[in-house]
Amino acid sequence: MDRYEQVTELARRRGFMWPAFELYGGAAGFYDYGPLGAQLKRRIEDAWRGFFVIREGFAEIEAPTIGIEDIFKASGHLSGFSDPLTECKECKEIYRADHLIKHIIEVPDALSDEEIYQVFQDNDIFCPECGGDLSTVYEFNLMFKTAIGPGNKHAGYLRPETAQGMFINYPRLLRYFRGALPFGAVQIGKSYRNEISPRQGVIRLREFTQAEAEVFIDPRDKTHPRFDEVKDIVMRLYSQAGQERGEVEEMTVGEAVEKGIIAHQTLAYYVARTYQFLQAVGVARDRLRFRQHKADEMAHYAADCWDAEVLLDRLGWIELVGVADRTDYDLKSHMALSQARLTVFVNYDQPVRREKLVIKPDMKSLGPRFKGQAKAIAEALKSLDMKELKGEGPIAVQVDGETVEVERELVSFEMVEEEIRGEELVPHVIEPSFGIDRILYTVLEHSYYEEMVEEEPRIVLRLLPRMTPVDVAVLPLMDRPELTAPAREILEALRSAGYLTDYDTSGSIGRRYRRNDEIGTPYCVTVDYETIEQGTVTIRDRDSMRQVKVKKEDLLGTVSGLLCCTQRFEDAGVAVSP
Amino acid sequence: MDRYEQVTELARRRGFMWPAFELYGGAAGFYDYGPLGAQLKRRIEDAWRGFFVIREGFAEIEAPTIGIEDIFKASGHLSGFSDPLTECKECKEIYRADHLIKHIIEVPDALSDEEIYQVFQDNDIFCPECGGDLSTVYEFNLMFKTAIGPGNKHAGYLRPETAQGMFINYPRLLRYFRGALPFGAVQIGKSYRNEISPRQGVIRLREFTQAEAEVFIDPRDKTHPRFDEVKDIVMRLYSQAGQERGEVEEMTVGEAVEKGIIAHQTLAYYVARTYQFLQAVGVARDRLRFRQHKADEMAHYAADCWDAEVLLDRLGWIELVGVADRTDYDLKSHMALSQARLTVFVNYDQPVRREKLVIKPDMKSLGPRFKGQAKAIAEALKSLDMKELKGEGPIAVQVDGETVEVERELVSFEMVEEEIRGEELVPHVIEPSFGIDRILYTVLEHSYYEEMVEEEPRIVLRLLPRMTPVDVAVLPLMDRPELTAPAREILEALRSAGYLTDYDTSGSIGRRYRRNDEIGTPYCVTVDYETIEQGTVTIRDRDSMRQVKVKKEDLLGTVSGLLCCTQRFEDAGVAVSP
Repeated sequence: MDRYEQVTELARRRGFMWPAFELYGGAAGFYDYGPLGAQLKRRIEDAWRGFFVIREGFAEIEAPTIGIEDIFKASGHLSGFSDPLTECKECKEIYRADHLIKHIIEVPDALSDEEIYQVFQDNDIFCPECGGDLSTVYEFNLMFKTAIGPGNKHAGYLRPETAQGMFINYPRLLRYFRGALPFGAVQIGKSYRNEISPRQGVIRLREFTQAEAEVFIDPRDKTHPRFDEVKDIVMRLYSQAGQERGEVEEMTVGEAVEKGIIAHQTLAYYVARTYQFLQAVGVARDRLRFRQHKADEMAHYAADCWDAEVLLDRLGWIELVGVADRTDYDLKSHMALSQARLTVFVNYDQPVRREKLVIKPDMKSLGPRFKGQAKAIAEALKSLDMKELKGEGPIAVQVDGETVEVERELVSFEMVEEEIRGEELVPHVIEPSFGIDRILYTVLEHSYYEEMVEEEPRIVLRLLPRMTPVDVAVLPLMDRPELTAPAREILEALRSAGYLTDYDTSGSIGRRYRRNDEIGTPYCVTVDYETIEQGTVTIRDRDSMRQVKVKKEDLLGTVSGLLCCTQRFEDAGVAVSP
Repeated sequence: MDRYEQVTELARRRGFMWPAFELYGGAAGFYDYGPLGAQLKRRIEDAWRGFFVIREGFAEIEAPTIGIEDIFKASGHLSGFSDPLTECKECKEIYRADHLIKHIIEVPDALSDEEIYQVFQDNDIFCPECGGDLSTVYEFNLMFKTAIGPGNKHAGYLRPETAQGMFINYPRLLRYFRGALPFGAVQIGKSYRNEISPRQGVIRLREFTQAEAEVFIDPRDKTHPRFDEVKDIVMRLYSQAGQERGEVEEMTVGEAVEKGIIAHQTLAYYVARTYQFLQAVGVARDRLRFRQHKADEMAHYAADCWDAEVLLDRLGWIELVGVADRTDYDLKSHMALSQARLTVFVNYDQPVRREKLVIKPDMKSLGPRFKGQAKAIAEALKSLDMKELKGEGPIAVQVDGETVEVERELVSFEMVEEEIRGEELVPHVIEPSFGIDRILYTVLEHSYYEEMVEEEPRIVLRLLPRMTPVDVAVLPLMDRPELTAPAREILEALRSAGYLTDYDTSGSIGRRYRRNDEIGTPYCVTVDYETIEQGTVTIRDRDSMRQVKVKKEDLLGTVSGLLCCTQRFEDAGVAVSP
């Protein structure tokens, strides 16, 4: 069993996660999170909120998971979000066409559907299952499609990313942030990709959870006001140039920006925050790097993009997070399709003074010539564009629906100085986009340890405090009323204080400790006869397996100190000799 | 403007929620939660978790929102979850057929599609839009349908309720809870109903959020061990009998069970917890009642069902929560379709002794007759069913693949007493099912107040503490560096402590207070020149509009005390005379 199998076996057995719809034979690409997995997932999401909502002051929103067609027309998903397919003419099995020629063509994504089909023919590629002829290659859109309301009149699509929810709400978000850049909006929620034949457990799902932030910034200034807070962080960077040399470099965030390796401060700032966040939830530092997208893999909208990649035992380097400069691509696409103005007025630091040619109607001549219409004509002349004033002959203006021609000698021109305070701009967007399911799996794998204890294997999940699905397990030494009654009292007190608890009376105390080690419970509280006689309970530490005795009435305070890491276990009570 | 319009106008303007896809003209039945609404929603969900996960010890899981066909075949949604439609033959407009005859037939749901069409014909019902002929009536399934993977081979449906995720995971949940009843599992997540023509904002959505608990209990005992905690709570009940009399009764939960008004303790326990929860998030007690489903509206699976209903200004009494005894309906349906055994072995309190007729092979006779096969034949005889032993003539047994006939005189029968320790049962399920979007809207409406202050109208959302989207607003008196610098420091300190903050420098201080009143911010902290000179800041209370001055260094402690309600505002600092 490799680590992947060990982790998924543990996850299934203990209730972290398992393939969905088991009762009916399952369906690839769908997973259930069980009690422990759902809890761990929420803790990861909450940690993410701590970083990207509370600390950055971004706004979390919640848009529908179903979207209407226009959104994905503008975003490009309707036309471009697809995989090439081929079907066996005999057995009707469907394949990713590019996957069938991987051994022949190094980068099959670069080929057109026709070119892939040509490779089939030139290389005698047949159905891998039955040897039958393969159909021509066609594109399969990866969005799940449905119909909104009866009658197939309105197509709906399950969103392939949460990001579009922020883009199409830009006008409301801008207003919420009182019309000023920069601001950020985030969503944590389900996204969907109708993969052809997903494998690899929660690494490639058809329904998955994303946490995405869209940070709207002034395109003229991509520095970041809090860059100093992160500039000294040392990270492992695998840049475009480094990938060509096959070399991962360690350097500070500041250095990376100075050397032009990361495009600008704002992008680097979110790369650094991503780095901090991933470690805060339990991704191992020595199996984490940031890889820059190569020019040919960069999305068409991106100016620069860095993926946080982790090393997994079976799967190798896997992308967990992408941090991209999406520029103004999305807002401009939605502007073009919706005709709405997705801009912001930005004030210049100093108003700019500019000379401008303006028209000066000569009222003394216009009055006698046009009588009552003179004033309206003067206004119409002033509102004309300078271009319309150029040329020879009379100037045509519209007044009360009729065209009036004004002789050129009746107007004069003048240079005036005008003050320009700012301009309308389309913001650029920096996007840190997190795959929560992959992060969760990584946290499990990177926390998984097997060790020999007293000649028996012990599995222990060394999850970080506050990332554990169970904070404290309460274990009466035996399942007898005189022990379970005080144990239940302790349980209630811990629950009321908001801790995630478990209560277990079945099996020997040693076995129950092991069961809790396996799911990462940092502390077990054992209620025994000393609890009745002397009012003490035993706290047992997952990592060291050591035990201390504390007074029952001090338990809540001690546990809270231990979980906040303000209390060292060694000093938490009277050590119990092993 | 009625209250509904006032609340939705405020919600839209300030960023609680608004119709989705505005940029592209919208689509009925979809809403966006903006920054404030999404935050309020999470607070409601977290409060729910406090009640139904932490306190009850239930397990929260997360199953996919897309389900495969078998699930909904078993649940009955595929065949029974539909509305009757008719289409205008001229203008092609589609209508809920039963809605078109509401003025003629009192309970149109009771009619078949053919009967509705007959009513059209008997009463000259035509298209309300163009007067055209209506088509025959047909059923429209309310589940959103999609295809999983390419080629339309596998249908997928967006779940119409989260409940099925708990039912189909029953075997894993039972194992997680170590094989013993009772236990509960919950989900908070999206559900979908492809309504024909939804109106009423977030009250009737095509995509909405449910929080559902499925509590698996022993069907033989529907008492609840913690019933005493709730039995004295007085609630307004609108029972089946009460509805016939048109009378809402006030009584304790204990009384309701004693009188047989609520079917049993466990159902009543969750009705009471629902009552507590709704008030804890801000539903007004005097606009809340529990209505029992009438016999003819009860779902086919339910033994008893109570809805929490609230009174809304425009919409009248609206259901927020259903608390139902779903019996063993769902588990039995999934058992029948999947052939899996969705039971639990329950131990009797006392083993039951029962007399049983058993076969007793006579080895002294079998030995000589069958030689080496004798032992195998004796075992085979013992494992026969009593039914197979009845009758005349030799008894046939299978030994090593061949049939051996044993003469009846070679065996004897004996009565033995056997001990039965328990039995396999299908649990019953009690389900409290909450509509989060409706609860959120109700909280807004029930918190909305307009009052005259100094001859100007003041809108104030009297949200409960810890239910507010912003805990504290930090307001520098003026937008000048000497004030914004300390204000920013305070902001960071509050954010680091985990509080939801807002920072606002635009407009007069009075206007900013009003803006915060409108979104329910309980406390505003104002930084002014006294902050620089004397190190004090002003805290202003939303409800009383009074102000106190506290030392800057005491602010965090004071705010925390105020928000936990352990600190009275009156004693929080030096009162500022208005």
